[in-house]
Amino acid sequence: MKAPRGTSSQFASDNWSGICPEAWAALAAANAGHAPSYGSDDWTTAATAAIRSVFETECEVFMVFNGTAANSLALSALCRGTDAIVCHANAHINVDECGAPHFFSGGAKLLTADTPHAKLTVDAVERLAVTPHDVHSARPRALSLTQATELGTLYTADEIAALCDQAHRMGMLVHLDGARIANATAALGGTPAALRSFTIDAGVDALSFGGTKNGLLGAEAVIFLNPLAAVGSAFVRKQVTQLSSKMRFLAAQFNAILDEGLWLDLASHANEMARELYSRTSCIDGVILDGPPAVNSVFPSLPRPAIEPLRDWCFFWDWDESRDQVRWMTAWDTTVDDIERFAEGVRAVLAAPV
Amino acid sequence: MKAPRGTSSQFASDNWSGICPEAWAALAAANAGHAPSYGSDDWTTAATAAIRSVFETECEVFMVFNGTAANSLALSALCRGTDAIVCHANAHINVDECGAPHFFSGGAKLLTADTPHAKLTVDAVERLAVTPHDVHSARPRALSLTQATELGTLYTADEIAALCDQAHRMGMLVHLDGARIANATAALGGTPAALRSFTIDAGVDALSFGGTKNGLLGAEAVIFLNPLAAVGSAFVRKQVTQLSSKMRFLAAQFNAILDEGLWLDLASHANEMARELYSRTSCIDGVILDGPPAVNSVFPSLPRPAIEPLRDWCFFWDWDESRDQVRWMTAWDTTVDDIERFAEGVRAVLAAPV
Amino acid sequence: MKAPRGTSSQFASDNWSGICPEAWAALAAANAGHAPSYGSDDWTTAATAAIRSVFETECEVFMVFNGTAANSLALSALCRGTDAIVCHANAHINVDECGAPHFFSGGAKLLTADTPHAKLTVDAVERLAVTPHDVHSARPRALSLTQATELGTLYTADEIAALCDQAHRMGMLVHLDGARIANATAALGGTPAALRSFTIDAGVDALSFGGTKNGLLGAEAVIFLNPLAAVGSAFVRKQVTQLSSKMRFLAAQFNAILDEGLWLDLASHANEMARELYSRTSCIDGVILDGPPAVNSVFPSLPRPAIEPLRDWCFFWDWDESRDQVRWMTAWDTTVDDIERFAEGVRAVLAAPV
Amino acid sequence: MKAPRGTSSQFASDNWSGICPEAWAALAAANAGHAPSYGSDDWTTAATAAIRSVFETECEVFMVFNGTAANSLALSALCRGTDAIVCHANAHINVDECGAPHFFSGGAKLLTADTPHAKLTVDAVERLAVTPHDVHSARPRALSLTQATELGTLYTADEIAALCDQAHRMGMLVHLDGARIANATAALGGTPAALRSFTIDAGVDALSFGGTKNGLLGAEAVIFLNPLAAVGSAFVRKQVTQLSSKMRFLAAQFNAILDEGLWLDLASHANEMARELYSRTSCIDGVILDGPPAVNSVFPSLPRPAIEPLRDWCFFWDWDESRDQVRWMTAWDTTVDDIERFAEGVRAVLAAPV
Repeated sequence: MKAPRGTSSQFASDNWSGICPEAWAALAAANAGHAPSYGSDDWTTAATAAIRSVFETECEVFMVFNGTAANSLALSALCRGTDAIVCHANAHINVDECGAPHFFSGGAKLLTADTPHAKLTVDAVERLAVTPHDVHSARPRALSLTQATELGTLYTADEIAALCDQAHRMGMLVHLDGARIANATAALGGTPAALRSFTIDAGVDALSFGGTKNGLLGAEAVIFLNPLAAVGSAFVRKQVTQLSSKMRFLAAQFNAILDEGLWLDLASHANEMARELYSRTSCIDGVILDGPPAVNSVFPSLPRPAIEPLRDWCFFWDWDESRDQVRWMTAWDTTVDDIERFAEGVRAVLAAPV
Repeated sequence: MKAPRGTSSQFASDNWSGICPEAWAALAAANAGHAPSYGSDDWTTAATAAIRSVFETECEVFMVFNGTAANSLALSALCRGTDAIVCHANAHINVDECGAPHFFSGGAKLLTADTPHAKLTVDAVERLAVTPHDVHSARPRALSLTQATELGTLYTADEIAALCDQAHRMGMLVHLDGARIANATAALGGTPAALRSFTIDAGVDALSFGGTKNGLLGAEAVIFLNPLAAVGSAFVRKQVTQLSSKMRFLAAQFNAILDEGLWLDLASHANEMARELYSRTSCIDGVILDGPPAVNSVFPSLPRPAIEPLRDWCFFWDWDESRDQVRWMTAWDTTVDDIERFAEGVRAVLAAPV
Repeated sequence: MKAPRGTSSQFASDNWSGICPEAWAALAAANAGHAPSYGSDDWTTAATAAIRSVFETECEVFMVFNGTAANSLALSALCRGTDAIVCHANAHINVDECGAPHFFSGGAKLLTADTPHAKLTVDAVERLAVTPHDVHSARPRALSLTQATELGTLYTADEIAALCDQAHRMGMLVHLDGARIANATAALGGTPAALRSFTIDAGVDALSFGGTKNGLLGAEAVIFLNPLAAVGSAFVRKQVTQLSSKMRFLAAQFNAILDEGLWLDLASHANEMARELYSRTSCIDGVILDGPPAVNSVFPSLPRPAIEPLRDWCFFWDWDESRDQVRWMTAWDTTVDDIERFAEGVRAVLAAPV
Repeated sequence: MKAPRGTSSQFASDNWSGICPEAWAALAAANAGHAPSYGSDDWTTAATAAIRSVFETECEVFMVFNGTAANSLALSALCRGTDAIVCHANAHINVDECGAPHFFSGGAKLLTADTPHAKLTVDAVERLAVTPHDVHSARPRALSLTQATELGTLYTADEIAALCDQAHRMGMLVHLDGARIANATAALGGTPAALRSFTIDAGVDALSFGGTKNGLLGAEAVIFLNPLAAVGSAFVRKQVTQLSSKMRFLAAQFNAILDEGLWLDLASHANEMARELYSRTSCIDGVILDGPPAVNSVFPSLPRPAIEPLRDWCFFWDWDESRDQVRWMTAWDTTVDDIERFAEGVRAVLAAPV
């Protein structure tokens, strides 16, 4: 399935959204004359400092263009080609990256479990990470978690800490895919302390810090909370073609949203809009929803005959076709008006005789 | 050697420049609400059409973030891991990409010649591309040329045609690294017909079409003039993490500079400024320059004691330390005032007693 | 778990066996003076011809050192790094090759199903090979089956034909891991025609033809029944370091066992010995076995306290620890005496008070 | 150029030779019943101990099938994909391994110098290993030397020590391609102490210890004199498909030739035969030879019209066609009779009117 060329939709994905005003202004300000390339500029220095300040540690920071790159670069630092990566069956690295983690790492395997709510458990990790035969099996050396998960659920800080403990005990380092880490942080307290509670305090070694889905043009950061894991990654980023010559334009955007907690305000708004979307659609006859969303997506099951007409009117993706389940997402720029209009459309299509 | 953090300079590199006003306006216009991701948007459709119109052929177009990615993606399509790529010793793919072509292609070798003026010759290609021993040697399957070259020189259309003929005769496909293809086109006639004369008409199979050094934020296009060579590259672009989710922002910029030949105007200006720089500095005592530049760089040899003081004042890179040779570049935004000021500085430093 | 250094056992694995007398004699005969290296010798020509004669087709043949290499070389020819390989969860390529298929192919994913009896079904293939999202998912391009399976079960020729049909319909080519293809052939009719019925006649494109487990020193052949799939594999074999300089010693062994059906006699004997082992141990109190073996392995569940004492006496591998299930294998050289002695040992250990 | 299928020749290459009687006897002795697979056998334990005893250190030992594998496995341990390997332009890893070092290492570059006599110099290493630009260039992390070289020349122990010092000073580890290390050792003193003088004492970190060209069936050992460099290589050997299931047959051969210095006797004989070949052919009119050979090859220039007739009669390879230079090699089994017959043939062909 592919979005029809030229389609527009407010609820298809948070990566269909544009650039937030503050990031835009920062881009404009950065676009003044010449500046050193490849990260030797003041914006990059400032963004690195801002991220270190949020995490209260001298982490290593590598800005890249997108989330697949962030995940693959992080994982290539945590394991080598003869190793295995433990992750959930729904993980973006397993289903949406066209084998990039295998490629970047030089052959690492993925070991997956399909535990409920798209969340791995300590038991599942323990089971997956046992290597039976000597050198014949890839060694599990990295655990990759997604926060918020691909299903819009959240791990508590304690759950991540327990998973990190288990992983470290078994000789693995831990990666967190934080494409929507701002949404998770907003939902779990909305402060840098909340962020630290489920990352550095919980024992995460490296994370992908998402910006693209939260109002940036296309900018993510790989953050090595465990700086030892970063050795050599500057060269790897270059080799995998993720080193931007005009790095200032990535960095300036991060500076903008890290300033005064804007990144959390944007994500908090998206989360709130998802709750609004839930409250305005869960009451519609035919819409089946489990409960209010934790972050910025809802996954309704719909009457099958209604799905295509509704999608034709306002595009969205399928989630689980076997259950007629689809995904609606909100973003930093979703408005109550958007939701009202959309809910009315849903109501109309579902009310129509088939 | 590394640019000191925070340094600024008008003559260090064309990739130190910012975004041209027209590309900026296009970004602003594209930043309106939601749009389909990963290239299913109207801007991408339009950019592809614009490029096809320039080349007057149904080429395959893949926009990516930077030049190293463009080169490696193109080359990975022209050869496989057991093959070899013939290129000049000065080629960016040989010296400035940290092994990316080896990595993307799964192990392809580079076979290099250090022929004069950074230009390969038919003889050199013939000599390099002979494989002596059966399966023991990587098979030469791709020839990679750079236009304009890393030394600011140009191949004529006839020279490229002869190189393509030789390559095709020997079973190779031809890639053109066009990080500065606009400067080359401007210098060789300044029309789409001039561009076609040394690319599609000459027999080039795939090229990297540079935007970053010509006023864009960070956008390049891999263009398969030989569409058969592109089979599978959509998947490869994803796997190597060069598929932008917010593709419209790459495409919009291309649309802006492809409109009414702006890309050629910008490059033509940069070239003119290099000639101006040449004429204002070649007459300075101690500056040794071979002749007026073909495109947007000059490579003077300077008295050794003057190099560091001059660089401290206005940063530039070394080219050949053994000859005290450095590189000064102009860009789309260089002004006559910039040059005047710089030339005065050069004069002052060279006149100073050591 | 690792075999204790220096242990000996007749039932641990068929790859613990030595070289059969006929292969040994062929090695001796080949060891006469000098011969061209890297396969330009008469033995290699003859072995290739012998294999073509068995399959009654002009297949491409590449002899290699071991089964992991054979599988990885074959699969690297059937798919590229952005593709996916469908296989059973028990497949050797999934659990016992330390990521070699990912590595050789440059990043291909494995998509696995855990269907009963270690046998894939048409339904499972259909389900696994559906790619949901455009370029974001690796494309399923190869189906890999094992015959006989890792669990000692067999596909019928019709089952393989149906799986090949399904695979081809979905755009995949089919690989058969035939590390124990001789045992399978012996069990399914014991003639070259039987072999062809579940390989070339069924639609298999490439297969790994095992010799190591059937009396050879360490020699397997990759056989491309679909010769188009072999393009470039001569170079790949060299690059992945599987081209033997003294190829005659691999080829001579194949010539020996392909002569007058010896390969089938050896495998047939191993299969018969497994049936003997079954009949002499299934009657022992505490030994749980499902039914007589199809090829040369039995998978009994044993009383847990008996496993380690028995293993200490005569080493064997665990199969499924959760069910106290172990694996006993026979080989081309197993004798009825060996089995009698072993059965008596099993009886003694199981009869002992814990 | 390819050896005509079925050709025989005593002087084409030492890898055209067979298995020496002692290795053959050891194979026969090892072929007794079952033994643990994948190196958990007594022969492998003994071979490792024998090698450690020769080097007088607790080195890590990995037996593999061939020299390309040994080199690539060793190098993949000394550097990663973003690094560069410094070697001579004539190095086997550069010209005869079809990109295997690039592939195994995940993209490492080769930096080559074409210094005289196929020997690298400290100056050349210093020049090659300077990295100009930050993360844009692959970092030189490994130096690979060949001893004896591909041109049959030798480094003295002092020369290797100086090269190792230079390499270590520049942050590189040192690999020695010892495909013909026995010939080198025989020529440099003929004792284990001589071997140690140009390997462990000189500072070499890892080496490929050749057996195939010295009377073995196809067996080489990667020896990590610096055991830290070996971390993870057990898994890499498996993934790159160089782990033999019937390892005892590799190990038994090493045991045979390491016993009582047989490996040196065999190589010493081959060297002596090359000197005999030199003395019987250098006096023939038209044969141009520089001086007596250091090891087991001579590289004569011949009158061009004589080369093909001579090759048709007794096959050999070209070395440098531009100089009409060919290569004749001796082996462990070359006899004075062989040489006499060959020298007569040379004399006859060169005396014939063209």
